[in-house]
Amino acid sequence: MKPITVGILGAGRIGQVHGNNLLRMAGIELRAVTDPYVDFTSWPPAPVATGKDPDLILDDDEIEAVLVCSPTPTHADLTERAARVGKHVFCEKPIDLDPDRIQRTLAIVEECGVKLQVGFNRRFDPTFARVRQAVTDGDIGEIQLVKITSRDPEAPPAEYVATSGGIFLDMTIHDFDMVRFLTGTEVEEVYATGAVLIDPAIGEAGDVDTAVTTLKMANGAIAVIENSRQAVYGYDQRVEVFGSGGNAEAGNETPNRVTVSSTAGVRSDKPLYFFLERYQASFVAELESFFRSIREDEPTPVGGTDGLMSVLIGLAASRSMAENRPIKVETP
Amino acid sequence: MKPITVGILGAGRIGQVHGNNLLRMAGIELRAVTDPYVDFTSWPPAPVATGKDPDLILDDDEIEAVLVCSPTPTHADLTERAARVGKHVFCEKPIDLDPDRIQRTLAIVEECGVKLQVGFNRRFDPTFARVRQAVTDGDIGEIQLVKITSRDPEAPPAEYVATSGGIFLDMTIHDFDMVRFLTGTEVEEVYATGAVLIDPAIGEAGDVDTAVTTLKMANGAIAVIENSRQAVYGYDQRVEVFGSGGNAEAGNETPNRVTVSSTAGVRSDKPLYFFLERYQASFVAELESFFRSIREDEPTPVGGTDGLMSVLIGLAASRSMAENRPIKVETP
Amino acid sequence: MKPITVGILGAGRIGQVHGNNLLRMAGIELRAVTDPYVDFTSWPPAPVATGKDPDLILDDDEIEAVLVCSPTPTHADLTERAARVGKHVFCEKPIDLDPDRIQRTLAIVEECGVKLQVGFNRRFDPTFARVRQAVTDGDIGEIQLVKITSRDPEAPPAEYVATSGGIFLDMTIHDFDMVRFLTGTEVEEVYATGAVLIDPAIGEAGDVDTAVTTLKMANGAIAVIENSRQAVYGYDQRVEVFGSGGNAEAGNETPNRVTVSSTAGVRSDKPLYFFLERYQASFVAELESFFRSIREDEPTPVGGTDGLMSVLIGLAASRSMAENRPIKVETP
Amino acid sequence: MKPITVGILGAGRIGQVHGNNLLRMAGIELRAVTDPYVDFTSWPPAPVATGKDPDLILDDDEIEAVLVCSPTPTHADLTERAARVGKHVFCEKPIDLDPDRIQRTLAIVEECGVKLQVGFNRRFDPTFARVRQAVTDGDIGEIQLVKITSRDPEAPPAEYVATSGGIFLDMTIHDFDMVRFLTGTEVEEVYATGAVLIDPAIGEAGDVDTAVTTLKMANGAIAVIENSRQAVYGYDQRVEVFGSGGNAEAGNETPNRVTVSSTAGVRSDKPLYFFLERYQASFVAELESFFRSIREDEPTPVGGTDGLMSVLIGLAASRSMAENRPIKVETP
Repeated sequence: MKPITVGILGAGRIGQVHGNNLLRMAGIELRAVTDPYVDFTSWPPAPVATGKDPDLILDDDEIEAVLVCSPTPTHADLTERAARVGKHVFCEKPIDLDPDRIQRTLAIVEECGVKLQVGFNRRFDPTFARVRQAVTDGDIGEIQLVKITSRDPEAPPAEYVATSGGIFLDMTIHDFDMVRFLTGTEVEEVYATGAVLIDPAIGEAGDVDTAVTTLKMANGAIAVIENSRQAVYGYDQRVEVFGSGGNAEAGNETPNRVTVSSTAGVRSDKPLYFFLERYQASFVAELESFFRSIREDEPTPVGGTDGLMSVLIGLAASRSMAENRPIKVETP
Repeated sequence: MKPITVGILGAGRIGQVHGNNLLRMAGIELRAVTDPYVDFTSWPPAPVATGKDPDLILDDDEIEAVLVCSPTPTHADLTERAARVGKHVFCEKPIDLDPDRIQRTLAIVEECGVKLQVGFNRRFDPTFARVRQAVTDGDIGEIQLVKITSRDPEAPPAEYVATSGGIFLDMTIHDFDMVRFLTGTEVEEVYATGAVLIDPAIGEAGDVDTAVTTLKMANGAIAVIENSRQAVYGYDQRVEVFGSGGNAEAGNETPNRVTVSSTAGVRSDKPLYFFLERYQASFVAELESFFRSIREDEPTPVGGTDGLMSVLIGLAASRSMAENRPIKVETP
Repeated sequence: MKPITVGILGAGRIGQVHGNNLLRMAGIELRAVTDPYVDFTSWPPAPVATGKDPDLILDDDEIEAVLVCSPTPTHADLTERAARVGKHVFCEKPIDLDPDRIQRTLAIVEECGVKLQVGFNRRFDPTFARVRQAVTDGDIGEIQLVKITSRDPEAPPAEYVATSGGIFLDMTIHDFDMVRFLTGTEVEEVYATGAVLIDPAIGEAGDVDTAVTTLKMANGAIAVIENSRQAVYGYDQRVEVFGSGGNAEAGNETPNRVTVSSTAGVRSDKPLYFFLERYQASFVAELESFFRSIREDEPTPVGGTDGLMSVLIGLAASRSMAENRPIKVETP
Repeated sequence: MKPITVGILGAGRIGQVHGNNLLRMAGIELRAVTDPYVDFTSWPPAPVATGKDPDLILDDDEIEAVLVCSPTPTHADLTERAARVGKHVFCEKPIDLDPDRIQRTLAIVEECGVKLQVGFNRRFDPTFARVRQAVTDGDIGEIQLVKITSRDPEAPPAEYVATSGGIFLDMTIHDFDMVRFLTGTEVEEVYATGAVLIDPAIGEAGDVDTAVTTLKMANGAIAVIENSRQAVYGYDQRVEVFGSGGNAEAGNETPNRVTVSSTAGVRSDKPLYFFLERYQASFVAELESFFRSIREDEPTPVGGTDGLMSVLIGLAASRSMAENRPIKVETP
């Protein structure tokens, strides 16, 4: 089987995660990595070309697929440029913060006939995928309630927050996608409320660090997402889907299965620290899925519409919080 | 120690639960039970007087305390009458559905100098009390998020629903009190959303069977309550309190601690079926607490204001759902 | 329904536990309690007669059933005397430490035609009963392995140990009965090993405080019992039954279902402290079962043979440890 | 950093597991794989040399380290040959079934001054390593009891059993090593009992399929190992270490953290199927540890004595079962 040749645009944290995974993946050749700011001395290993200019990748006719791992404002542009030279695109979320721009990008991708997958990796987490399976197996019956707990282990710096698009487009966006993934149905209306309870600097940057979002779904179900920028005990990532047939509940992953009983009580270790640890397997699985779509010429499992919808929901949530009232989600 | 002599006004389901508990309680003498509709042939045992007329109890000078277990519309009136003849009152929730009437009743109780305790029994559940203890011990730090899952094992008949005051005053009222109990702070604003997903007859009776309520608390925290009238796997009663110091999570009680592993997976029994099983210990503990307040002449742990506040929040929730917008809670 | 009139012979700790349960039990009248050493000022309440002499009970023709709760050396004698005056007997374990004496007692009981139940209360624990149910339901298939963890929260004083008959007859005897109950099959051979690891005074008293016993069962299965006189985290009472169809595992009971997550990890409270807390429900259920056997004239669920077998196994275990070799269990 | 060049002797199942792990390991170059019986068409990938003759590896001066993954009867010989040509050796367990032969091999290894690590991978499992950490952290205090549950998901064919050396040398040997690892102390005496309860053909092959082994440890503690060749619900691998300070308990690993509640009860998925799934991380970690020992010129974490001791305990267990009496472990 001829390997798929791949280039990575953007070599920050997530670009390196993907790069290391590609290097260990059968049937994949990582050909080149570009990033205008990164100093490529220690990574990646020698046989991979590196440079500042994305054209190193975009001009290489042997590269079939690119991973867009650059800062958000460049996602749409790089996706479009790659599509235009016939490369399949795996793009980190969000494609853009402006739905119109996303739609233009999606139109170009479609016109060029290349695959596009958006980086909602959590769909590929074994635990959340198992919850979805319970739904599709019919174990839950008609879905009535969805509950997502999503708390980071530590708050980002206020400077990051200032340019992040706000908690709903930066953090909750994953949970919006999770609700759509778990239920297989669309969000119609959003009511979001938030507070600054962790770091006043986040409030000064115009954002909140604690939020609860209620979603009315097209099938009548109600979903609740609860976010915090800082859970001192680590990354808290749980979901629950309830319906006429039962309830599926996904607990946190932990580094081991040990409990220690002593005079002080019964203790176990904290959940896995953050997304790199918690979602390690999902980062591999989403890429394998992307390459399988290319090889078998099938639609990708997380397409452009998924990328668009989560942004539309995020914008509705931001507006809901600002105006303190429920907001309908615009449909494209 | 001289026993406290007690009468029960209303001998329906909850009246009998309390009655049986009183019969086993040290230092308590159950003197009389009245109910206009109940046929007292098999219960209670002989030494307890029975009758249709509440005056059997209210006129008995040796009865120090009464339990008001009659239908809701009679709560306020019986409480007032008992107070006026100097009897301490334990009143099932809600005192009334009309806040003005509650306030008049509370004024009379105060004037008469008797104790009043409202039947929010869940505060006395060992599991929820342990969560509250984690809060008061400082383990949670500053409270930021509260989450309550409250699902009944089967929906009530539509006729019951029609006169219940609606899900927020009938079912969620317990959860409103739980939020106040766990956090020790008041609710300022409510946004409630609901749906009819279980029984269309409930919808025809003007109510919903599935609801999500978001509460903004006076200390800045956000609480979410999620209700369903029917969880096919039994009574689902969980709470979670999250804050700057950590998270306390209360899971369901089960009839045993057995797991069975087989080719089909790993199974355990469903949660305890309904409130009589789940909250058995709490019904005893709330009465013991009431009698202790009488004996030691201390304030009761769940007073008139607690009864009033939960109704005010319930009314705000009903209105919020009707108008699909957040509603401020009226403060007395 | 006419109440069953009951007397208690022996008012130490377990006698008081049973007495308090009887006082709350429908259809039962506790008539008298005797104990040569106990000062009956605060317990039981007035309507119950008290005295030093067992004849107060044995001579009372209206007393139908007695509970033998006196020290072990008096069990057989009191059981025989009660049987001879036609009273049903509930006898705390062991009936005696000498199998011959037990057999003589059982012969007298049978001759007198009264019921005898032995106080192996753990069979009535909801969790262990659920494991047995998994076995009888066929969920476990053919039983192949049984595992019992039985650890006390604190070691008894060395003086107690000196007259206890040794760990196998004092502590493990409950576990021997549990193995017989769970499997429904008999023990054929025992290999026991022990050590003094907790309190040297226990060793000086001629006993061990830590023991592991392996049992070969008549159906070919193997059982292991592991005992410790001191688990610093509380009473550790777990069982496991494994077979061709699966595994049933019973975990510890805890006072609540709360977990607290913090920077230090995830904590829950220790198991219930000791047998009074852990087996509270089973003490009630064993008596209810005894009285049901009387009322319906059915065999008791834990009969004389059960009392004899556990002693025979205990003696074999003691000898096995002393001789450091497997010992066949004598069958009567 | 110059990579360590490695050869694999034996390309059966475990050889391929190690080979695939080596191919993904930084700083390691897999140079050659030999196996007299395996047809190397699909594995390993091109740049790795393959052949039938071990000399392909042993004669290659650039190969620094070998992995002995061939059948047990060749382990000692290949280890010695590799040592004599100055190569470090990672040898799968057991080194040999004959303790004298093991000792001769260890003497040669020592003489040649190469590293030797034995493949007791379970020491590197994150869950069991965490239990060991609780011990070394002092959380358990003085160790008093150890309990190991080790059950395979399906029994091997009787032909395999016939040449395996018996359950104690083939299966329990891992658990003997685990007891030594967890406690840091030696086994002094063994009592083993077994039965044929799963497959009569295993009995005809002269072995048992169900076994319980009791070990008396040098520090006075008692360990129990319970084995079954077939747990229908999957690979059951649990350990427990109990002592004066508390108890550490390691539960099974599962493929996800999902529970599904329905009218049928609360279900979760079975444990990970078998050792390839369960111990995946440990196979990587043991090799990384071996290479680190080479690089830093430190002793390997699992040395020749560990390989020898587990065989000596296994032989004592076999003899104990045959003679139905406790057997002292011979010390070298």
